[in-house]
Amino acid sequence: MTGWLVVAGLGPGDDALITPEVTAVLAEATDVIGYIPYVARVAAREGLALHPTDNRVELERARHALELAAEGGRVVVVSSGDPGVFAMASAVFEAVETAPEYGDLDIRILPGITAMLAAASRLGAPLGHDFCAINLSDNLKPWELIEHRLRLASQAGFAMAFYNPRSKSRPHQFSRALEVLREECGGQRLISFARAVTTTEEAIQTVTLAEAVPEMADMRTVVIVGNADTRRIGRFVYTPRSVS
Amino acid sequence: MTGWLVVAGLGPGDDALITPEVTAVLAEATDVIGYIPYVARVAAREGLALHPTDNRVELERARHALELAAEGGRVVVVSSGDPGVFAMASAVFEAVETAPEYGDLDIRILPGITAMLAAASRLGAPLGHDFCAINLSDNLKPWELIEHRLRLASQAGFAMAFYNPRSKSRPHQFSRALEVLREECGGQRLISFARAVTTTEEAIQTVTLAEAVPEMADMRTVVIVGNADTRRIGRFVYTPRSVS
Repeated sequence: MTGWLVVAGLGPGDDALITPEVTAVLAEATDVIGYIPYVARVAAREGLALHPTDNRVELERARHALELAAEGGRVVVVSSGDPGVFAMASAVFEAVETAPEYGDLDIRILPGITAMLAAASRLGAPLGHDFCAINLSDNLKPWELIEHRLRLASQAGFAMAFYNPRSKSRPHQFSRALEVLREECGGQRLISFARAVTTTEEAIQTVTLAEAVPEMADMRTVVIVGNADTRRIGRFVYTPRSVS
Repeated sequence: MTGWLVVAGLGPGDDALITPEVTAVLAEATDVIGYIPYVARVAAREGLALHPTDNRVELERARHALELAAEGGRVVVVSSGDPGVFAMASAVFEAVETAPEYGDLDIRILPGITAMLAAASRLGAPLGHDFCAINLSDNLKPWELIEHRLRLASQAGFAMAFYNPRSKSRPHQFSRALEVLREECGGQRLISFARAVTTTEEAIQTVTLAEAVPEMADMRTVVIVGNADTRRIGRFVYTPRSVS
């Protein structure tokens, strides 16, 4: 039996946003590996081993997946959203880099609907012009670099999407990010908080930077800051295709 | 009959990347509107009117869609990729803004797999760290602003995805973009050209900025430039989650 490893995106939460490509590969899998709540989205069946693991063990999880595939398993590593955006695809290649014996394995990445685009679709079209995506966690980079990127992205006129904006272990940093954004963009810039998009716990609100408080975000929230042209129209928030 | 308007993303080309949510709404539609090659992806059936239109008529197309929905139609505006990324969602809200009588319509945006994330999945994980998306067409913004954004994005250390990199009507600009990128990032930075991803005409190559020539891109190509840590591992290109 020839094994393979697929890193697949389950989208933001609603099963109607899982691509048929991902559904098909899950039906062929012998092993599904991932963070506990993502593996919980895959239905158990005979012949399928589920391997839920805790957060923050991405490299060990990737190595385990490579081992199972090398032994002949048909292994799917599941991410929420898109596996290439602040998720498991890079972790798998990091693991391959330190274990070249896995370099010949059949590895494929299958895209998914990433959280910022699901959030944008619910809001209207806040990312309809040039934009950037920044992970606000300083687990894997210094906070100073994050502030530098916030300033340059603001000066470039990008709309911005923030992943992992705030966690219990670093409650003060998002407050500082809001300060930097107010300095660079002014208090009237629109900021949207989209929590648990497409799930039953979905909650979305848009305020100005002057009105924004850190408690509007948690780790399940994607934050989207508009550019200088972003505006409300009725219940929607959108960014025009052209610049004013 | 109460009409509605949905702006839906068909993904990059392969029908296996169309979400079930989009497939379901297409099955309910009375009218499908969009650029000719995207409407051609929707199967004809009794009770469905197809309205293919040429490129560069986005606002007229959006107004037509609003009119049909206001008359009671169940209207789907189809975009390739994701409708919120350099596609029809913003055009629809621009049309609503100039025609407030449509403000009460039932309008929804349904996300899709955008080209840069499909391209990234084929390449490996080049967008695995902070990144930006820039439309290189100067139809709707001045070229100077594009150069400014390329420089600031380089200085921020973003990986970069470029939509609409090159067309027959502006053959010299992408050459200039490559010059700016070489100045800011150096000749050894990796750049990937992903054309017609997930279709039968898919073609993907990765070179250094020193090796890149404008002819590697056309309007069906998404271009991805790595950050300073982006590297090859076997046949893949990936960006680590952490900074070196």
